Amino acid sequence: MQTNTRLIRKENYEPKELNLHETLFHNANGYIGIRGTLEEGVPTDYPTMRGQYIAGTYEIIPMKQAESLCNLVEEKQTMINVCDTQTIRLSVNGEEFAPVKGGVKDASRVLDMEEGYTERTTVWKSPAGNEIRVRIRRMAHFGIKELFTIEYEVEALNFSGEAVFDSVHMPEVANYSDPDDPRLADESPCYLKSVEKGFSGNRSFSVAETAKSGVRIAVATDHTVVSESRSDSMIREEGNALITRLRVPLKQNEKIAVIKYAAFSDSIRESDPKGKVMQVLKDAMKRPLSELYLAQKEYLSDFHAHSRMEIEGDAELNDAVLFNTYQLLCAAPHDAHSGIAAKGLSGEGYEGHFFWDTEMYVVPFFVLTDPTLAKNILSFRYATLPAARENATLLGHKKGALYPWRTITGVECSGYFPSGSAAYHINGAVAYAVIQYYLATGDADFMVTMGLEILLETARLWLDTGVYDREGRFCIQEVTGPDEYTCMVNNNYYTNASAKNNLRFAADLYEQFRDRAEVKKLAARLKLDKTEIADMKKAAEKMYLPYDEAYGINPQDDSFLDKPVWDLANTPKDVYPLLLHYHPLHLYRYQVCKQADTVLSHFLFPDLQSKETMENSFRYYEKITTHDSSLSTCVFSMTASMLGLKEEALAYFGDSAKLDLMNRHENTKDGVHTANMGGCYMAIVSGFAGLRITDEGLSVNPYVPKGLSRYSFPFAYRGRRLKLTVEKNSAKLELVSGDALEFGFRDTRAELGKEEPWVVKL
Amino acid sequence: MQTNTRLIRKENYEPKELNLHETLFHNANGYIGIRGTLEEGVPTDYPTMRGQYIAGTYEIIPMKQAESLCNLVEEKQTMINVCDTQTIRLSVNGEEFAPVKGGVKDASRVLDMEEGYTERTTVWKSPAGNEIRVRIRRMAHFGIKELFTIEYEVEALNFSGEAVFDSVHMPEVANYSDPDDPRLADESPCYLKSVEKGFSGNRSFSVAETAKSGVRIAVATDHTVVSESRSDSMIREEGNALITRLRVPLKQNEKIAVIKYAAFSDSIRESDPKGKVMQVLKDAMKRPLSELYLAQKEYLSDFHAHSRMEIEGDAELNDAVLFNTYQLLCAAPHDAHSGIAAKGLSGEGYEGHFFWDTEMYVVPFFVLTDPTLAKNILSFRYATLPAARENATLLGHKKGALYPWRTITGVECSGYFPSGSAAYHINGAVAYAVIQYYLATGDADFMVTMGLEILLETARLWLDTGVYDREGRFCIQEVTGPDEYTCMVNNNYYTNASAKNNLRFAADLYEQFRDRAEVKKLAARLKLDKTEIADMKKAAEKMYLPYDEAYGINPQDDSFLDKPVWDLANTPKDVYPLLLHYHPLHLYRYQVCKQADTVLSHFLFPDLQSKETMENSFRYYEKITTHDSSLSTCVFSMTASMLGLKEEALAYFGDSAKLDLMNRHENTKDGVHTANMGGCYMAIVSGFAGLRITDEGLSVNPYVPKGLSRYSFPFAYRGRRLKLTVEKNSAKLELVSGDALEFGFRDTRAELGKEEPWVVKL
Repeated sequence: MQTNTRLIRKENYEPKELNLHETLFHNANGYIGIRGTLEEGVPTDYPTMRGQYIAGTYEIIPMKQAESLCNLVEEKQTMINVCDTQTIRLSVNGEEFAPVKGGVKDASRVLDMEEGYTERTTVWKSPAGNEIRVRIRRMAHFGIKELFTIEYEVEALNFSGEAVFDSVHMPEVANYSDPDDPRLADESPCYLKSVEKGFSGNRSFSVAETAKSGVRIAVATDHTVVSESRSDSMIREEGNALITRLRVPLKQNEKIAVIKYAAFSDSIRESDPKGKVMQVLKDAMKRPLSELYLAQKEYLSDFHAHSRMEIEGDAELNDAVLFNTYQLLCAAPHDAHSGIAAKGLSGEGYEGHFFWDTEMYVVPFFVLTDPTLAKNILSFRYATLPAARENATLLGHKKGALYPWRTITGVECSGYFPSGSAAYHINGAVAYAVIQYYLATGDADFMVTMGLEILLETARLWLDTGVYDREGRFCIQEVTGPDEYTCMVNNNYYTNASAKNNLRFAADLYEQFRDRAEVKKLAARLKLDKTEIADMKKAAEKMYLPYDEAYGINPQDDSFLDKPVWDLANTPKDVYPLLLHYHPLHLYRYQVCKQADTVLSHFLFPDLQSKETMENSFRYYEKITTHDSSLSTCVFSMTASMLGLKEEALAYFGDSAKLDLMNRHENTKDGVHTANMGGCYMAIVSGFAGLRITDEGLSVNPYVPKGLSRYSFPFAYRGRRLKLTVEKNSAKLELVSGDALEFGFRDTRAELGKEEPWVVKL
Repeated sequence: MQTNTRLIRKENYEPKELNLHETLFHNANGYIGIRGTLEEGVPTDYPTMRGQYIAGTYEIIPMKQAESLCNLVEEKQTMINVCDTQTIRLSVNGEEFAPVKGGVKDASRVLDMEEGYTERTTVWKSPAGNEIRVRIRRMAHFGIKELFTIEYEVEALNFSGEAVFDSVHMPEVANYSDPDDPRLADESPCYLKSVEKGFSGNRSFSVAETAKSGVRIAVATDHTVVSESRSDSMIREEGNALITRLRVPLKQNEKIAVIKYAAFSDSIRESDPKGKVMQVLKDAMKRPLSELYLAQKEYLSDFHAHSRMEIEGDAELNDAVLFNTYQLLCAAPHDAHSGIAAKGLSGEGYEGHFFWDTEMYVVPFFVLTDPTLAKNILSFRYATLPAARENATLLGHKKGALYPWRTITGVECSGYFPSGSAAYHINGAVAYAVIQYYLATGDADFMVTMGLEILLETARLWLDTGVYDREGRFCIQEVTGPDEYTCMVNNNYYTNASAKNNLRFAADLYEQFRDRAEVKKLAARLKLDKTEIADMKKAAEKMYLPYDEAYGINPQDDSFLDKPVWDLANTPKDVYPLLLHYHPLHLYRYQVCKQADTVLSHFLFPDLQSKETMENSFRYYEKITTHDSSLSTCVFSMTASMLGLKEEALAYFGDSAKLDLMNRHENTKDGVHTANMGGCYMAIVSGFAGLRITDEGLSVNPYVPKGLSRYSFPFAYRGRRLKLTVEKNSAKLELVSGDALEFGFRDTRAELGKEEPWVVKL
């Protein structure tokens, strides 16, 4: 089948479209992210988020509470726009290349997901009648993660003359602010102050530092010119800007190019970030650009081999899934210094904060395609365990760790704790991801060095939070589940179920690894009491999971069903999302859900309830869920698949996979919806294909939803590479590499040998 | 018996003491309040809240939320320091009178509660050895509410020479800020900007305006000199200050005095506040000061006749109750333009906001002693009914009115809504006060013009908030009761009980008055639906009042008893109040109460439960209540009295009546605890004396607690003036004026005729 590995869009140079394209055509490699802004800039009244980012770099800014209460968060981290090295102003024969002002004869944008670059091509006629073709290719390199290149090619179509490039390196730039959107921060100061800047030969360099966090950012740029004629270059400083002017003769029908290399480093990772960027440029510029392009392609070839899903019957969906998985790769950290932000590295929405979404919606993708990246994400959580312990202390806990609801450094940044810090289920999500990673990889070293400590400390928090009620049930009070339209409740079903999972695996895996030297040391360091493991087991066993006899469902929390049902049928379209139109206290008073909550827990922990109860719950909650969060429909879809509700699974799957490509929420300009991308992948893999990994091993239960004819995807499992192909009437599991295995298919056990694939009739 | 009608304190001129004395010796008359600061000022490193206030005047300042959510309050009103007319600097023979720097031979402060003034007397020896006696008497006039006078008398004791007074009128002054106390605002800008100022003859005047609220404040001052010799005066402007210099010859052993008259007015009440203050000064200065003093004394004589309680057996308590009732008078509004602030007019604590305390703790005092002042307070609530309707709308209600948790203008100022706007019981408190006022006065005109509309609109809010559960019980979800250590709960017993009372009386009194023309118009204006009254009755009848079979108590809310009990026995003293030492989410997770909640509702609505249940509740809650609020122990005391738990009643009464006099909470410097003062009065009148007024009329059930021998107090009831005297073995009810009446005594009915008192053996 044919997959469009290139996303191609016409470029009309219209303000709203440009803003959207900044996201869709951004370049990122998990370390750096560069918005797809125009090199030549846009008029000041155009909306633009002209940003370049480094994963995990941040400034600390005040977040004053309207009313001071004990231990409320009063400052937050925010991602920083680290510099501007995108700006290149071009003049031909003295006329400024400014396609936003007209003269465009043909223009397009391309994202090539096999080659790993974006490209903008514009045929432009100057006011004086000179025509040029401009092709600008940009790349954030996956191999040299500090490197960003711009290959800026110009061809004179009907004249000869001269091209003058003013290439800018600006070390101090402001963050974006959109006063209309309360979900974005409304501060837009320049967080970086230049410490050192200048030229070393023709190479510009800068070191800038934030005032409060003390994070230093080093940037260097250099250029090469590709031309048959002699060009000249001149450097200058203009205000804060370091500018390189390149004059290149233009001959009709001859392509000339300027290649701009920019390198980025930061003091979180490097002791000498300036030395680092100089070295990166030196090394990179030794190699021809074509070699860098080739390395990029090879890297991606490997990625696609391990992750490329193919879907027949819906070409758009097939393309969208490729786009999504590519975006996930662009967002994935290469080290333990950052998580995955809500918008990846594609924009400043949600201030660059990491949420539970990463563990619950994105880690499963990497666990199945590139477990090393999954491990990086979990290593970040391990690295921030001390901050999570401190957070637990601030909230009054005597032991354990509570991960922050939103963070960059691991320190809590929630301004409104009832739907922030109170969302204790973040602990359940981190624990769930650790467990999933371990079950899928069998990586015991990770467990004894990091994973187990996370599990034990999060489990301890549940022990410290919960309490046995008069009937001896373990209850968890005053927490907020995933559905933020209900806050600070008792026995949120989802939270209790995920705490049960956390407690159980913490105890079981501790016992499994207890004899290893690292674990003995860990137990001593954590002062693990012998009774604690027993306490964890008991709490897991006695965990209260609310059930309502009359409805035959699991209520979202103790009092959820006592509330009146919100009349969604008579709620006008223009008041969605509800949180922007109703006071939270009003929302809290109704049965109305922002997103899947109990329904998600049914998917994650299906053994806790009968199929009938789960179906009843599904039917109940779908009537009162607004899906105001982009994390919701994918969960409804996969739970429907699990329950055999194929029509519903398809309906909920809808085209949420195309959310960003189609800009359905009209906010893709702020950045891509990373978690939704992971969720859609799961809706296929764990939903349609029914792929699950539990402590009983791998199992599948695939079907092809109506409208599709066939889909297949590769995945990793315990050192193996496998591929599942599902057709209307049959499914096939192939072993690409690794050992034979036994796995589950529906209620049976099946075996996959090395010689030939396992095939079953559906 | 002897009552100390003068509060006398030694003045050591020490910083902390001065700050406390600023509160204890402030002057106020319900319209203006002037802190008892030193005329000559204090060194800059002394803590001081140098303030002058006008009831109900305010500025609007931003109160940004850490996280923006729909319809959260983002600005608040704050009381303003309206000017400085207190400053008078004295020099004798060129030496500045500066007792804080030493030279004090003897000094005292006096509050005379029969004469209605404060006085500071200081015998001071200058560095050069000149001795003077300075006596400064200050008065906020109850008859001319805009008038404040300072009579500044100097006597040269061992020399002759000259006194020079620099008397200052400063129109722009800053509000106080104490960065150490999060309960005080931390902004201290100058809210007023001078619009017009200068001298008219020797009379200084100023008009200043706030930037946002547009409130204008007019102030004028003038002076007379009392001296046998000729004095001269000189006026000047120095920066913003208007200064009058008065030179008065001093002869040994001759008293000379400067009398400073200051008048205040505001644009909320007056269309021409400047004209008003000029007129007030003109009129006041026509009369000798002695006549103003006499009028003040006569006003207070009337007040004391209607309110003076006499207690034998605890002289300190007797004095404290006088102090408290006097302070309540000083705080009571003379019109409908303000309520009673948490600190009255004595300081800036709680930013001058009005809370439910007024209706629940202070109105009962005025209902029994000066119903006109009670009516003023309720008229303020009537005047702000439109703002309460708007507040209800912001919170998503389709009808009804919700009074704001804290306010000056009637617009909500809560920064943290879970323990602010969510405290819907404010509606119950306002309704309760309206009902109490009506039952005690029979003021039908008030009911048909104001009271009924308040009752109907608050009752409507309950109808719009509550919902019938599956068992047909009327439930109220997601509200916060008086105990702020538990927030946003379902079926808070107190809230439901007070809503029931509100609903029932709204319906009953509507039916009682429905044929009056005003009520017919009201019903039309409110578009009162015929079914609404029936709905109110039904909701009142079906109101769910949670009861726990196992404990035989009323749980504070649906889930309260599911939570673990806070271990108060092992909580160190230095972590009280808990709210300053624990994150709110932690507090919410425990059975621990800041203050009386269910226990208060038992006192207010004793007919809802059996005596046994109420006693069980009392016993239960007393174990988990910290009394971190000054509103708590008085309630425990009166509920104990009601239940016949005399020892407990006495123990809880303790010396909370002396809270401010003894500065027990160490924050009297921020202002007096107005509500506690009302609560202590109630603990005697409604507690010890068991005085109740219900729709069945007046009843008493008095006793003398251990340690006291006798107490008596006058009170008003339906046009009558009565006096109750209680001794160990007998009680006496006398009719001072008005008609004979039938009343309840314990379970019996009694009659009080005009001829002789009713006496009963106890």
